[in-house]
Amino acid sequence: MEFSINHTDKNCKARVGRLKTDHGEVATPVFMPVGSIGTVKTASPAELGKCQVQMMLSNTYHLYLRPGLEILKEFGGLHQFNRWDGPILTDSGGFQVYSLEELKNIYEDGVEFKSHWDGSAHLFTPEKVVDIQRVIGSDIMMVLDYLTGNPSEFEVAQTAHRQTLKWAERATIQFQKTKSLYGYRQFQFGIIQGGIYPQLREESIKGLLLIGFDGYAIGGLAVGEDAETRNQITDFCTEKLPEVFPRYLMGVGKPEDVIQSIQLGVDMFDCVVPTRNGRNGTVFTHHGKINIRNTAHKTVKDPIDPNCGCEACLNFSLGYIHHLFKVNEILGLRLATIHNIYFYMKLLSDARDAILRDQFIPFKNAFLKTRG
Amino acid sequence: MEFSINHTDKNCKARVGRLKTDHGEVATPVFMPVGSIGTVKTASPAELGKCQVQMMLSNTYHLYLRPGLEILKEFGGLHQFNRWDGPILTDSGGFQVYSLEELKNIYEDGVEFKSHWDGSAHLFTPEKVVDIQRVIGSDIMMVLDYLTGNPSEFEVAQTAHRQTLKWAERATIQFQKTKSLYGYRQFQFGIIQGGIYPQLREESIKGLLLIGFDGYAIGGLAVGEDAETRNQITDFCTEKLPEVFPRYLMGVGKPEDVIQSIQLGVDMFDCVVPTRNGRNGTVFTHHGKINIRNTAHKTVKDPIDPNCGCEACLNFSLGYIHHLFKVNEILGLRLATIHNIYFYMKLLSDARDAILRDQFIPFKNAFLKTRG
Repeated sequence: MEFSINHTDKNCKARVGRLKTDHGEVATPVFMPVGSIGTVKTASPAELGKCQVQMMLSNTYHLYLRPGLEILKEFGGLHQFNRWDGPILTDSGGFQVYSLEELKNIYEDGVEFKSHWDGSAHLFTPEKVVDIQRVIGSDIMMVLDYLTGNPSEFEVAQTAHRQTLKWAERATIQFQKTKSLYGYRQFQFGIIQGGIYPQLREESIKGLLLIGFDGYAIGGLAVGEDAETRNQITDFCTEKLPEVFPRYLMGVGKPEDVIQSIQLGVDMFDCVVPTRNGRNGTVFTHHGKINIRNTAHKTVKDPIDPNCGCEACLNFSLGYIHHLFKVNEILGLRLATIHNIYFYMKLLSDARDAILRDQFIPFKNAFLKTRG
Repeated sequence: MEFSINHTDKNCKARVGRLKTDHGEVATPVFMPVGSIGTVKTASPAELGKCQVQMMLSNTYHLYLRPGLEILKEFGGLHQFNRWDGPILTDSGGFQVYSLEELKNIYEDGVEFKSHWDGSAHLFTPEKVVDIQRVIGSDIMMVLDYLTGNPSEFEVAQTAHRQTLKWAERATIQFQKTKSLYGYRQFQFGIIQGGIYPQLREESIKGLLLIGFDGYAIGGLAVGEDAETRNQITDFCTEKLPEVFPRYLMGVGKPEDVIQSIQLGVDMFDCVVPTRNGRNGTVFTHHGKINIRNTAHKTVKDPIDPNCGCEACLNFSLGYIHHLFKVNEILGLRLATIHNIYFYMKLLSDARDAILRDQFIPFKNAFLKTRG
């Protein structure tokens, strides 16, 4: 995979790079908004573009169930279907192994899911997950992994990591045996597991490097551990990973967690926080979070954040958006979503600027101070 | 009110005119999308603009309850609040007299409503409804009226019409005693009642003309009568009304009903059909209605209507919008809404063109043929 590092901050591991895909280049560190079923909830591709979104994430499990492979193939892949023409990364379904507690069985061969739509049973093997992502046509596909909540017993984390490693090997064989269906390149990332145990994380990294991937994701974090543990494991992993590969911290996170992890040398992020929080009426500003539904906002003629350049802040008052939430108007969900996505994109853009100036640590400290 | 008729089709009563407000001129016949609580559901003002919306309708009853008068006054009226800078017409609350069967009492003085939000009681008098619309700052305000479902007994329709007329007189006195709060002109329309009885309709028109309004609405239709009766009453009213005033047929309607009523000399329309149907997954095309959820559409790569110029049709396939509805993505509601509003705007624009060429009747016949 074409990934180049332009600059590493001289005071920490934060780095600015460039990820090249056939759907465009991505400046890293990058945050990917989540469109689980192919759509970043409430938003159009044009709106994502206006928010300066570079890359979106979608989900193999969700897309496999709906619209399903037949439709995706018929349309020539997800880009043609959802009309997002930038890069797309697809998660593998591994997170559902973790989150759909009641709806799965894990075997040596793979994972049996029950559809959350209709209860129908489906077996995901490492090979099948590659095949599905070939049909989806994501620019970056993830291997099927097995994660456990944190903290898990050492033996539990070990079993999950070793299973993940075996699956990773099968996944890469399948990846090499198959090819892109739509004429552009696809890349494959491995996923590091091992829970909160450095020894297991190291074993996982060594195993994945031996197999060889286009990039490496730190999985199995943001699933119950405290921030200090997450930072320690992240730091440990980025120490052990060669510098030349892109590093993706899956499912992270809140703005402060993203910023903290950038310092530790992470290049890629995804999380539902900006979109889900937006739909719940929580928006991010440079003075902290705001709950739109708070009655105090009902007469505010200023935008959510007077310093923000998003379409919501350029056009609407906080008072009006408060009203939209009080009367359940969908436009409210849209505006809060747009604002939060823009906030994340601007934050990452500012972070990249700070790194290029070797000022990431003061930038981080100033930002964290605003989080209360 | 500045209303001019540019041309009347030489083969029927259909006419093209121009309505001047301080928020811009409106080419008539015009269809106003409904934003009951200040917002056309799911859509932004910019999107309405792209759909060529000229004027929107909002609702006194809804706005009075939420956000309430204090907020509207604080913001300087609805235009400043919702950021729609074109003309706004506000209905009076009269329709709620009809539709909120369980939540009202009608007195000589006015109507007592119970809020559908919290059950709190509110009295709307003709004077108060004028005052509220001063605070809303709508370009055109409607008088408080009393309508009954069709068919109603003659005596019931007579009582309602006579009450409406008494209220209209009080409303116009209040209108003259007060003035616009925000520096631009407001106009007031009377509402003709009288159910399905020409004799009562005539009495109503005479009474309203004697009082004198900027325009005249035909109320009390599209509330249970068949299309033939509606057309007869509409035809009767437009015959009795002087040509020089704008004529507004309230709550109509389906595309075919709008087209039929244009032939009878109506200038203004509003209805929830395009927006509500859109959210339910029903979209209009020049080949008839389509139910987006229909499984047959799942592989369709063409847009909803290949001949349509709306943002939904320019950017997305019917197959993708079908998927959005199947997985409950809000973007689906947005795209169907935009499509239907654009369809109505284009239909009215085509109707105006046809009238100017004295070709309205063949235009209507060709259109009705596509409705099955």
